[in-house]
Amino acid sequence: MPEKQQSPTGRPRDPDVSERLIAAALEEYARTGWQSFTMQGVARRAGVGKSALYRRWTTKEELLIAGVESVALPLSETSDSGNLREDLTDAATRILHHFLDPTGWATLRISVDSTASPTMLDPFQERVTQAIRSGITAIFTHAADRGELTSDVPVRPLVESLVGSILVHVLSMPFDVRDDARQNAAAHVEPLVDVIMRAASPQPCP
Amino acid sequence: MPEKQQSPTGRPRDPDVSERLIAAALEEYARTGWQSFTMQGVARRAGVGKSALYRRWTTKEELLIAGVESVALPLSETSDSGNLREDLTDAATRILHHFLDPTGWATLRISVDSTASPTMLDPFQERVTQAIRSGITAIFTHAADRGELTSDVPVRPLVESLVGSILVHVLSMPFDVRDDARQNAAAHVEPLVDVIMRAASPQPCP
Repeated sequence: MPEKQQSPTGRPRDPDVSERLIAAALEEYARTGWQSFTMQGVARRAGVGKSALYRRWTTKEELLIAGVESVALPLSETSDSGNLREDLTDAATRILHHFLDPTGWATLRISVDSTASPTMLDPFQERVTQAIRSGITAIFTHAADRGELTSDVPVRPLVESLVGSILVHVLSMPFDVRDDARQNAAAHVEPLVDVIMRAASPQPCP
Repeated sequence: MPEKQQSPTGRPRDPDVSERLIAAALEEYARTGWQSFTMQGVARRAGVGKSALYRRWTTKEELLIAGVESVALPLSETSDSGNLREDLTDAATRILHHFLDPTGWATLRISVDSTASPTMLDPFQERVTQAIRSGITAIFTHAADRGELTSDVPVRPLVESLVGSILVHVLSMPFDVRDDARQNAAAHVEPLVDVIMRAASPQPCP
Protein backbone atom coordinates (compact mmCIF):
# COMPACT_ATOMS: atom_id res chain seq x y z
CA MET A 1 0.00 0.00 0.00
CA PRO A 2 1.52 3.40 -0.93
CA GLU A 3 2.50 5.66 1.95
CA LYS A 4 0.83 9.02 1.44
CA GLN A 5 0.74 10.43 4.95
CA GLN A 6 4.43 10.95 5.58
CA SER A 7 7.56 11.91 3.72
CA PRO A 8 10.19 9.16 3.74
CA THR A 9 12.37 10.70 6.45
CA GLY A 10 12.63 13.42 9.03
CA ARG A 11 9.19 15.02 8.92
CA PRO A 12 7.41 15.13 12.34
CA ARG A 13 4.48 12.78 12.78
CA ASP A 14 1.13 14.23 11.80
CA PRO A 15 -1.09 14.26 14.93
CA ASP A 16 -4.22 14.09 12.73
CA VAL A 17 -3.03 10.76 11.36
CA SER A 18 -2.37 9.49 14.89
CA GLU A 19 -5.85 10.50 16.00
CA ARG A 20 -7.41 8.91 12.93
CA LEU A 21 -5.52 5.68 13.57
CA ILE A 22 -6.55 5.57 17.23
CA ALA A 23 -10.21 6.15 16.37
CA ALA A 24 -10.01 3.50 13.65
CA ALA A 25 -8.40 1.05 16.08
CA LEU A 26 -11.25 1.40 18.59
CA GLU A 27 -13.95 1.21 15.91
CA GLU A 28 -12.29 -1.87 14.46
CA TYR A 29 -12.03 -3.45 17.91
CA ALA A 30 -15.69 -2.72 18.67
CA ARG A 31 -16.55 -4.66 15.52
CA THR A 32 -14.11 -7.55 15.72
CA GLY A 33 -13.04 -8.13 19.33
CA TRP A 34 -9.52 -9.37 20.12
CA GLN A 35 -9.47 -12.55 18.03
CA SER A 36 -10.01 -10.89 14.66
CA PHE A 37 -8.35 -7.56 15.43
CA THR A 38 -5.43 -6.87 13.05
CA MET A 39 -3.08 -3.96 12.40
CA GLN A 40 -3.93 -4.31 8.70
CA GLY A 41 -7.64 -3.87 9.43
CA VAL A 42 -6.93 -0.69 11.40
CA ALA A 43 -4.78 0.81 8.63
CA ARG A 44 -7.43 -0.02 6.04
CA ARG A 45 -10.24 1.50 8.12
CA ALA A 46 -8.21 4.69 8.70
CA GLY A 47 -7.22 4.93 5.03
CA VAL A 48 -3.60 5.14 6.13
CA GLY A 49 -0.58 3.12 5.01
CA LYS A 50 0.51 0.22 7.21
CA SER A 51 4.03 1.67 7.56
CA ALA A 52 2.61 4.90 9.05
CA LEU A 53 0.78 2.76 11.62
CA TYR A 54 3.80 0.61 12.49
CA ARG A 55 6.01 3.72 12.80
CA ARG A 56 3.77 4.82 15.70
CA TRP A 57 2.87 1.53 17.37
CA THR A 58 4.66 -1.73 16.75
CA THR A 59 2.13 -4.09 18.33
CA LYS A 60 -1.65 -4.44 18.67
CA GLU A 61 -1.27 -4.09 22.43
CA GLU A 62 0.56 -0.74 22.20
CA LEU A 63 -2.01 0.61 19.78
CA LEU A 64 -4.90 -0.47 22.01
CA ILE A 65 -3.29 1.03 25.11
CA ALA A 66 -3.06 4.35 23.24
CA GLY A 67 -6.71 3.96 22.27
CA VAL A 68 -7.85 3.18 25.79
CA GLU A 69 -5.91 6.15 27.17
CA SER A 70 -7.41 8.54 24.63
CA VAL A 71 -10.87 7.49 25.79
CA ALA A 72 -10.06 7.20 29.48
CA LEU A 73 -8.58 10.66 29.95
CA PRO A 74 -11.77 12.71 29.38
CA LEU A 75 -13.74 10.31 31.61
CA SER A 76 -11.45 10.86 34.57
CA GLU A 77 -12.02 14.62 34.43
CA THR A 78 -15.14 15.62 36.32
CA SER A 79 -16.94 18.82 37.21
CA ASP A 80 -16.91 20.28 40.74
CA SER A 81 -20.05 22.40 40.94
CA GLY A 82 -20.36 22.24 44.70
CA ASN A 83 -23.46 20.05 44.39
CA LEU A 84 -23.32 16.26 44.55
CA ARG A 85 -26.41 15.57 42.40
CA GLU A 86 -25.27 17.99 39.70
CA ASP A 87 -21.76 16.50 39.52
CA LEU A 88 -23.05 12.91 39.49
CA THR A 89 -25.56 13.74 36.74
CA ASP A 90 -22.79 15.33 34.68
CA ALA A 91 -20.49 12.32 35.13
CA ALA A 92 -23.30 9.81 34.53
CA THR A 93 -24.31 11.59 31.32
CA ARG A 94 -20.75 11.37 30.02
CA ILE A 95 -20.48 7.69 30.96
CA LEU A 96 -23.79 7.01 29.17
CA HIS A 97 -22.48 8.70 26.00
CA HIS A 98 -19.24 6.75 26.44
CA PHE A 99 -21.04 3.39 26.41
CA LEU A 100 -23.28 4.46 23.51
CA ASP A 101 -20.28 5.49 21.42
CA PRO A 102 -18.44 2.86 19.34
CA THR A 103 -15.06 3.87 20.76
CA GLY A 104 -16.38 3.73 24.33
CA TRP A 105 -18.00 0.40 23.57
CA ALA A 106 -14.65 -0.84 22.32
CA THR A 107 -13.08 -0.18 25.70
CA LEU A 108 -15.82 -2.28 27.32
CA ARG A 109 -15.09 -5.11 24.89
CA ILE A 110 -11.40 -4.82 25.68
CA SER A 111 -12.28 -5.04 29.35
CA VAL A 112 -14.51 -8.10 28.83
CA ASP A 113 -11.96 -9.79 26.56
CA SER A 114 -9.14 -9.15 29.00
CA THR A 115 -11.13 -10.79 31.78
CA ALA A 116 -11.60 -13.85 29.55
CA SER A 117 -7.89 -14.20 28.74
CA PRO A 118 -5.92 -12.48 31.49
CA THR A 119 -2.42 -12.98 30.14
CA MET A 120 -3.02 -11.16 26.88
CA LEU A 121 -4.82 -7.95 27.70
CA ASP A 122 -4.18 -7.66 31.41
CA PRO A 123 -3.12 -3.99 31.54
CA PHE A 124 -6.29 -2.72 29.86
CA GLN A 125 -8.83 -3.78 32.45
CA GLU A 126 -7.16 -1.69 35.15
CA ARG A 127 -6.82 1.40 32.94
CA VAL A 128 -10.38 1.55 31.68
CA THR A 129 -12.17 0.87 34.93
CA GLN A 130 -9.66 2.98 36.85
CA ALA A 131 -10.32 6.05 34.71
CA ILE A 132 -14.09 5.80 35.09
CA ARG A 133 -13.88 5.10 38.81
CA SER A 134 -11.35 7.79 39.68
CA GLY A 135 -13.55 10.59 38.32
CA ILE A 136 -16.63 9.54 40.28
CA THR A 137 -14.59 8.80 43.39
CA ALA A 138 -13.32 12.40 43.28
CA ILE A 139 -16.92 13.67 43.11
CA PHE A 140 -17.80 11.71 46.27
CA THR A 141 -14.64 12.88 48.04
CA HIS A 142 -15.57 16.52 47.37
CA ALA A 143 -19.12 15.89 48.58
CA ALA A 144 -17.79 14.26 51.76
CA ASP A 145 -15.60 17.33 52.38
CA ARG A 146 -18.72 19.50 52.13
CA GLY A 147 -20.66 17.18 54.49
CA GLU A 148 -23.07 16.21 51.70
CA LEU A 149 -22.20 12.53 52.02
CA THR A 150 -23.27 10.16 54.76
CA SER A 151 -20.26 8.61 56.48
CA ASP A 152 -21.70 5.12 56.98
CA VAL A 153 -21.63 4.02 53.32
CA PRO A 154 -18.19 3.43 51.79
CA VAL A 155 -17.55 5.16 48.45
CA ARG A 156 -16.43 2.17 46.39
CA PRO A 157 -19.79 0.34 46.24
CA LEU A 158 -21.51 3.65 45.39
CA VAL A 159 -19.14 4.09 42.44
CA GLU A 160 -19.67 0.48 41.34
CA SER A 161 -23.45 0.92 41.55
CA LEU A 162 -23.55 4.10 39.47
CA VAL A 163 -21.15 2.93 36.74
CA GLY A 164 -22.75 -0.51 36.68
CA SER A 165 -26.32 0.78 36.47
CA ILE A 166 -25.43 2.87 33.40
CA LEU A 167 -23.69 -0.12 31.82
CA VAL A 168 -26.65 -2.45 32.40
CA HIS A 169 -29.04 0.30 31.23
CA VAL A 170 -27.18 0.37 27.89
CA LEU A 171 -26.76 -3.43 27.71
CA SER A 172 -30.49 -4.04 28.13
CA MET A 173 -31.61 -1.17 25.89
CA PRO A 174 -33.51 -2.17 22.73
CA PHE A 175 -31.56 -0.97 19.72
CA ASP A 176 -34.17 1.57 18.62
CA VAL A 177 -33.97 3.36 21.98
CA ARG A 178 -30.28 4.18 21.59
CA ASP A 179 -30.93 7.34 19.58
CA ASP A 180 -33.35 8.57 22.21
CA ALA A 181 -30.74 7.87 24.90
CA ARG A 182 -28.17 9.93 22.99
CA GLN A 183 -30.55 12.87 22.67
CA ASN A 184 -32.09 12.68 26.14
CA ALA A 185 -29.14 11.41 28.12
CA ALA A 186 -30.02 13.40 31.26
CA ALA A 187 -33.50 11.84 31.42
CA HIS A 188 -32.01 8.36 31.05
CA VAL A 189 -29.49 8.78 33.88
CA GLU A 190 -31.76 10.68 36.29
CA PRO A 191 -33.42 7.59 37.87
CA LEU A 192 -30.00 5.96 38.24
CA VAL A 193 -28.54 9.06 39.93
CA ASP A 194 -31.63 9.12 42.19
CA VAL A 195 -30.78 5.65 43.49
CA ILE A 196 -27.22 6.72 44.33
CA MET A 197 -28.38 10.00 45.91
CA ARG A 198 -30.75 8.12 48.20
CA ALA A 199 -28.04 5.67 49.17
CA ALA A 200 -25.33 8.33 49.59
CA SER A 201 -27.09 11.17 51.34
CA PRO A 202 -27.86 11.44 55.03
CA GLN A 203 -31.66 11.16 55.20
CA PRO A 204 -32.99 14.17 57.08
CA CYS A 205 -36.05 13.62 59.24
CA PRO A 206 -39.15 15.61 58.28
CA MET B 1 -14.49 -37.62 13.00
CA PRO B 2 -16.12 -40.90 14.12
CA GLU B 3 -19.52 -40.68 15.76
CA LYS B 4 -19.35 -42.48 19.06
CA GLN B 5 -22.17 -40.95 21.04
CA GLN B 6 -25.15 -42.17 19.05
CA SER B 7 -26.23 -45.21 17.10
CA PRO B 8 -26.89 -44.47 13.40
CA THR B 9 -30.69 -44.32 13.66
CA GLY B 10 -33.61 -44.36 16.03
CA ARG B 11 -31.95 -44.15 19.43
CA PRO B 12 -33.21 -41.27 21.58
CA ARG B 13 -30.77 -38.39 22.06
CA ASP B 14 -28.53 -38.71 25.09
CA PRO B 15 -29.26 -35.75 27.40
CA ASP B 16 -25.74 -35.98 28.84
CA VAL B 17 -24.29 -35.32 25.39
CA SER B 18 -26.60 -32.33 24.95
CA GLU B 19 -25.53 -30.89 28.28
CA ARG B 20 -21.90 -31.46 27.48
CA LEU B 21 -22.29 -29.73 24.11
CA ILE B 22 -24.05 -26.72 25.65
CA ALA B 23 -21.38 -26.34 28.33
CA ALA B 24 -18.69 -26.66 25.67
CA ALA B 25 -20.42 -24.05 23.50
CA LEU B 26 -20.44 -21.47 26.30
CA GLU B 27 -16.85 -22.21 27.33
CA GLU B 28 -15.77 -21.94 23.71
CA TYR B 29 -17.65 -18.65 23.29
CA ALA B 30 -16.13 -17.22 26.48
CA ARG B 31 -12.73 -17.86 24.94
CA THR B 32 -13.33 -16.88 21.32
CA GLY B 33 -16.20 -14.41 21.09
CA TRP B 34 -18.51 -14.41 18.06
CA GLN B 35 -15.95 -13.91 15.29
CA SER B 36 -13.96 -17.08 15.95
CA PHE B 37 -16.78 -19.23 17.36
CA THR B 38 -17.28 -22.38 15.27
CA MET B 39 -19.42 -25.51 15.51
CA GLN B 40 -16.26 -27.54 14.92
CA GLY B 41 -14.56 -25.92 17.91
CA VAL B 42 -17.53 -26.79 20.11
CA ALA B 43 -17.61 -30.42 19.01
CA ARG B 44 -13.85 -30.73 19.56
CA ARG B 45 -14.04 -29.18 23.04
CA ALA B 46 -16.93 -31.50 24.01
CA GLY B 47 -15.16 -34.56 22.58
CA VAL B 48 -18.29 -35.29 20.56
CA GLY B 49 -18.68 -35.92 16.84
CA LYS B 50 -19.78 -33.02 14.65
CA SER B 51 -22.78 -34.96 13.37
CA ALA B 52 -24.10 -35.38 16.94
CA LEU B 53 -23.88 -31.63 17.35
CA TYR B 54 -25.58 -30.82 14.02
CA ARG B 55 -28.34 -33.34 14.76
CA ARG B 56 -29.30 -31.20 17.77
CA TRP B 57 -28.62 -27.66 16.52
CA THR B 58 -28.12 -26.76 12.90
CA THR B 59 -26.69 -23.26 13.39
CA LYS B 60 -24.38 -21.39 15.79
CA GLU B 61 -27.29 -19.15 16.72
CA GLU B 62 -29.56 -22.05 17.73
CA LEU B 63 -26.80 -23.61 19.80
CA LEU B 64 -26.06 -20.31 21.58
CA ILE B 65 -29.74 -19.70 22.31
CA ALA B 66 -29.89 -23.13 23.97
CA GLY B 67 -26.77 -22.20 25.92
CA VAL B 68 -28.13 -18.85 27.04
CA GLU B 69 -31.40 -20.44 28.12
CA SER B 70 -29.65 -23.12 30.15
CA VAL B 71 -27.83 -20.38 32.05
CA ALA B 72 -30.72 -17.93 32.25
CA LEU B 73 -33.29 -20.28 33.75
CA PRO B 74 -31.64 -20.75 37.18
CA LEU B 75 -30.99 -17.00 37.42
CA SER B 76 -34.64 -16.11 37.01
CA GLU B 77 -35.59 -18.32 39.98
CA THR B 78 -35.26 -16.46 43.26
CA SER B 79 -35.90 -17.14 46.91
CA ASP B 80 -38.84 -15.58 48.79
CA SER B 81 -37.78 -15.59 52.44
CA GLY B 82 -40.06 -12.75 53.49
CA ASN B 83 -37.06 -10.46 53.99
CA LEU B 84 -35.80 -8.07 51.30
CA ARG B 85 -32.14 -8.00 52.36
CA GLU B 86 -31.96 -11.78 52.59
CA ASP B 87 -33.53 -12.29 49.16
CA LEU B 88 -31.33 -9.63 47.52
CA THR B 89 -28.20 -11.12 49.10
CA ASP B 90 -29.17 -14.56 47.82
CA ALA B 91 -29.82 -13.25 44.29
CA ALA B 92 -26.67 -11.07 44.28
CA THR B 93 -24.55 -14.01 45.39
CA ARG B 94 -25.86 -16.11 42.52
CA ILE B 95 -25.28 -13.30 40.01
CA LEU B 96 -21.71 -12.89 41.31
CA HIS B 97 -21.05 -16.61 40.81
CA HIS B 98 -22.68 -16.32 37.38
CA PHE B 99 -20.25 -13.58 36.26
CA LEU B 100 -17.26 -15.44 37.78
CA ASP B 101 -18.16 -18.65 35.94
CA PRO B 102 -16.93 -19.16 32.34
CA THR B 103 -20.43 -20.04 31.13
CA GLY B 104 -21.94 -16.99 32.78
CA TRP B 105 -19.14 -14.87 31.42
CA ALA B 106 -19.96 -16.22 27.96
CA THR B 107 -23.49 -14.86 28.20
CA LEU B 108 -22.05 -11.42 29.02
CA ARG B 109 -19.79 -11.63 25.96
CA ILE B 110 -22.79 -12.65 23.86
CA SER B 111 -24.63 -9.63 25.22
CA VAL B 112 -21.72 -7.28 24.49
CA ASP B 113 -21.17 -8.77 21.03
CA SER B 114 -24.84 -8.52 20.15
CA THR B 115 -24.85 -4.84 21.08
CA ALA B 116 -21.90 -4.32 18.73
CA SER B 117 -23.58 -6.03 15.77
CA PRO B 118 -27.33 -5.95 16.32
CA THR B 119 -28.43 -7.89 13.27
CA MET B 120 -26.51 -11.02 14.14
CA LEU B 121 -27.16 -11.78 17.77
CA ASP B 122 -30.17 -9.62 18.48
CA PRO B 123 -32.34 -12.18 20.32
CA PHE B 124 -29.65 -12.94 22.91
CA GLN B 125 -29.37 -9.58 24.54
CA GLU B 126 -33.02 -9.60 25.55
CA ARG B 127 -32.92 -13.15 26.91
CA VAL B 128 -29.85 -12.80 29.11
CA THR B 129 -30.66 -9.45 30.67
CA GLN B 130 -34.35 -10.34 30.93
CA ALA B 131 -33.64 -13.48 32.95
CA ILE B 132 -31.41 -11.66 35.43
CA ARG B 133 -33.79 -8.70 35.74
CA SER B 134 -36.98 -10.70 36.11
CA GLY B 135 -35.72 -12.56 39.19
CA ILE B 136 -34.70 -9.41 41.05
CA THR B 137 -37.81 -7.55 39.94
CA ALA B 138 -39.89 -10.32 41.56
CA ILE B 139 -37.96 -9.87 44.82
CA PHE B 140 -38.79 -6.14 44.86
CA THR B 141 -42.43 -6.82 43.99
CA HIS B 142 -42.76 -9.18 46.96
CA ALA B 143 -41.06 -6.60 49.22
CA ALA B 144 -43.46 -3.89 48.00
CA ASP B 145 -46.42 -6.18 48.82
CA ARG B 146 -45.06 -6.52 52.35
CA GLY B 147 -44.55 -2.73 52.66
CA GLU B 148 -40.77 -3.16 52.92
CA LEU B 149 -40.16 -0.99 49.85
CA THR B 150 -40.43 2.76 49.62
CA SER B 151 -42.93 3.78 46.96
CA ASP B 152 -41.04 6.79 45.60
CA VAL B 153 -38.20 4.91 43.89
CA PRO B 154 -39.16 2.93 40.77
CA VAL B 155 -37.98 -0.69 40.70
CA ARG B 156 -36.20 -0.70 37.35
CA PRO B 157 -33.26 1.57 38.31
CA LEU B 158 -32.84 -0.42 41.55
CA VAL B 159 -32.51 -3.60 39.51
CA GLU B 160 -30.08 -1.96 37.09
CA SER B 161 -27.99 -0.68 40.00
CA LEU B 162 -27.72 -4.04 41.75
CA VAL B 163 -26.98 -6.11 38.64
CA GLY B 164 -24.62 -3.43 37.30
CA SER B 165 -22.70 -3.04 40.54
CA ILE B 166 -21.97 -6.78 40.62
CA LEU B 167 -20.89 -6.70 36.98
CA VAL B 168 -18.52 -3.75 37.51
CA HIS B 169 -17.25 -5.36 40.73
CA VAL B 170 -16.20 -8.43 38.68
CA LEU B 171 -14.93 -6.36 35.73
CA SER B 172 -12.61 -4.31 37.92
CA MET B 173 -11.46 -7.20 40.11
CA PRO B 174 -7.75 -8.07 39.89
CA PHE B 175 -7.40 -11.63 38.65
CA ASP B 176 -5.96 -12.99 41.87
CA VAL B 177 -9.02 -11.84 43.85
CA ARG B 178 -11.43 -13.98 41.82
CA ASP B 179 -10.84 -17.10 43.94
CA ASP B 180 -11.53 -15.11 47.10
CA ALA B 181 -14.75 -13.79 45.52
CA ARG B 182 -15.86 -17.35 44.75
CA GLN B 183 -15.21 -18.49 48.31
CA ASN B 184 -16.50 -15.39 50.10
CA ALA B 185 -19.25 -14.32 47.73
CA ALA B 186 -21.54 -13.05 50.48
CA ALA B 187 -18.84 -10.69 51.81
CA HIS B 188 -18.25 -9.35 48.30
CA VAL B 189 -21.91 -8.58 47.59
CA GLU B 190 -22.79 -7.23 51.04
CA PRO B 191 -21.65 -3.61 50.42
CA LEU B 192 -23.48 -3.63 47.08
CA VAL B 193 -26.69 -4.91 48.66
CA ASP B 194 -26.26 -2.22 51.36
CA VAL B 195 -26.38 0.51 48.70
CA ILE B 196 -29.61 -0.90 47.27
CA MET B 197 -31.16 -1.38 50.72
CA ARG B 198 -30.49 2.26 51.60
CA ALA B 199 -31.96 3.42 48.30
CA ALA B 200 -34.96 1.07 48.42
CA SER B 201 -36.08 1.19 52.03
CA PRO B 202 -38.14 3.88 53.70
CA GLN B 203 -35.69 5.55 56.11
CA PRO B 204 -37.21 5.46 59.61
CA CYS B 205 -36.41 8.38 61.90
CA PRO B 206 -34.50 7.54 65.08
